[in-house]
Amino acid sequence: MVLEELWRGVAILYVINEDSANRVLNSLKRLHVSAFAFKYSPDKLDLAWRCFDAIVLMMPVSAAVRLLCPLIKDKTIDRPVVVVSEDLRYAIPILGAHWGANELALELGKVLQGVVPVITTASESYGITSIEEFARKLITKIMNPELLSKVNAELLREGCVEVHGLTALPTWVKGNYKLNGDCKYKIYVLSEEPKMDFAENVLILKKLKLSIGVGSKRSTDTKLIKYAVLDVLDRLGVGIDRVDVIASVHENIKNVAEELGIRFMLVPLSDIGKFRPNDDCLTPPSEALTRLGIIGVAEPLALIAGGPTARLIMRKVVYDGEVTVAVAAHE
Amino acid sequence: MVLEELWRGVAILYVINEDSANRVLNSLKRLHVSAFAFKYSPDKLDLAWRCFDAIVLMMPVSAAVRLLCPLIKDKTIDRPVVVVSEDLRYAIPILGAHWGANELALELGKVLQGVVPVITTASESYGITSIEEFARKLITKIMNPELLSKVNAELLREGCVEVHGLTALPTWVKGNYKLNGDCKYKIYVLSEEPKMDFAENVLILKKLKLSIGVGSKRSTDTKLIKYAVLDVLDRLGVGIDRVDVIASVHENIKNVAEELGIRFMLVPLSDIGKFRPNDDCLTPPSEALTRLGIIGVAEPLALIAGGPTARLIMRKVVYDGEVTVAVAAHE
Repeated sequence: MVLEELWRGVAILYVINEDSANRVLNSLKRLHVSAFAFKYSPDKLDLAWRCFDAIVLMMPVSAAVRLLCPLIKDKTIDRPVVVVSEDLRYAIPILGAHWGANELALELGKVLQGVVPVITTASESYGITSIEEFARKLITKIMNPELLSKVNAELLREGCVEVHGLTALPTWVKGNYKLNGDCKYKIYVLSEEPKMDFAENVLILKKLKLSIGVGSKRSTDTKLIKYAVLDVLDRLGVGIDRVDVIASVHENIKNVAEELGIRFMLVPLSDIGKFRPNDDCLTPPSEALTRLGIIGVAEPLALIAGGPTARLIMRKVVYDGEVTVAVAAHE
Repeated sequence: MVLEELWRGVAILYVINEDSANRVLNSLKRLHVSAFAFKYSPDKLDLAWRCFDAIVLMMPVSAAVRLLCPLIKDKTIDRPVVVVSEDLRYAIPILGAHWGANELALELGKVLQGVVPVITTASESYGITSIEEFARKLITKIMNPELLSKVNAELLREGCVEVHGLTALPTWVKGNYKLNGDCKYKIYVLSEEPKMDFAENVLILKKLKLSIGVGSKRSTDTKLIKYAVLDVLDRLGVGIDRVDVIASVHENIKNVAEELGIRFMLVPLSDIGKFRPNDDCLTPPSEALTRLGIIGVAEPLALIAGGPTARLIMRKVVYDGEVTVAVAAHE
């Protein structure tokens, strides 16, 4: 995982020093990472764990360990966590070192003067891409998760795992994944759920469909919107063929959708106001939106267009201060 | 807690780099801390947690956190833990920062060239002496532990706690302990269990009796033995009046016991061989002792002399290479 892959952003939780938290926040924003700072509370930690792709805890390591223990399940699914001391002297990966925390600490060390990244993993070990991570980055659903522990164990033993349904292995893959070979386990990346039974050593990843929500002014140049949509897909590492629908409150975005060959959905602004008022995973709205009684634009649009199974995979990204794009995935 | 108070010593667990572990081991020995290095295994971590007063884990912080989580209960009783990276670049308190881990990391930073102590607690907070720690250092048994959480909470709220049965507060006490005052909770430090009922706001600490085991050569000067016994009591911060019995395999130690006004117990060497063969909290014996089929001398002697309720509170300390002294506490 590198910083650009923290699609759902980084939550910064601080205890006392809001100034230090804002320095970390602004550094991450300069690195083009979607980041948010919250004053620590048990609820905010829970929110960070559920809704963000990485967490920065600004508190003593020993306090952070006690708070995290009840949340920790398995390194293949836990969030990477970095402790940044409130005096901004140290950035210490304390969870998921090889799953993004080391890189986050190293990047903070580069952009925040004086912060020492405290890396304690052996340099020769780089981890492997777990099946969960592989499935997440390909934006797929694991159809038979009961096989996960066996396939992950095979990779840890440096046994190979065959991948079918891709023309090439993604560049970010680490570990003994192979396009061909005679491996014990096989992964099929499919667009549709298989109708027939499949063998016991086959893991099925079903490609999810993407819905894109676009926020813009009525006057915004549609060229900028088209650029923004393609740029977001580029960040996700997927092609336009994975997109099912583009949604907006403005009729003129239909032209962009047609140019891209994608279905368009017009959503009345009033529908956004009523949408999932308690979904705390949505990016907190600006004061202007709150005054209008609206919880957001691009993110609710992506989720509405994606239907009941949709979940946010990329928080809204802002382009030129007037276009926002968010992406949800659905079955 | 300062280093001299790690009476039961420090366990160092390493994964790969035994040389680094030995450098930490020798540094702690130079600081007069009883220290032992073990190759990590789940059993050794369990041993370290049960039998030692502090732990150094030589592994990545993120691995250490996962291993410790199942053991963590409460900061008043958990062991202080410091991660030292196997490349000896960092010493990071990850548990019990204010309960000894910060001091251990800082001391390692002083004696091990190049090791940076990564302190992440705010400098203005120094913690308080928990009731458990207060009871441990006074070598007492908490007779009504059900009151502990309330009294600790009172101290954390900076409310006062009255102490009866001491002529002065020990110098190491932190927090609002008072010899006099009108406090909500009172602590009584008593030599005997009270025969009558006591009020609901009274916490009873019963002084434990000490048994001392002495290992020596038949030819050892008894002056050295007397010095060693008094020095160990000085380290424990208690007077000779707390000692119930001194045990040895040599008849001539009886003179030392008589000079100090303490009961003497002669224990045949054969009794040591049979004593608690499965007690893995005892200091691992030297090869010479193992060849004799003996698991130790001073520690088993202290435990035998203390009877069935005895537990080791100070690992054997060596004087001039020929006297060992260990201390157990019993009811």
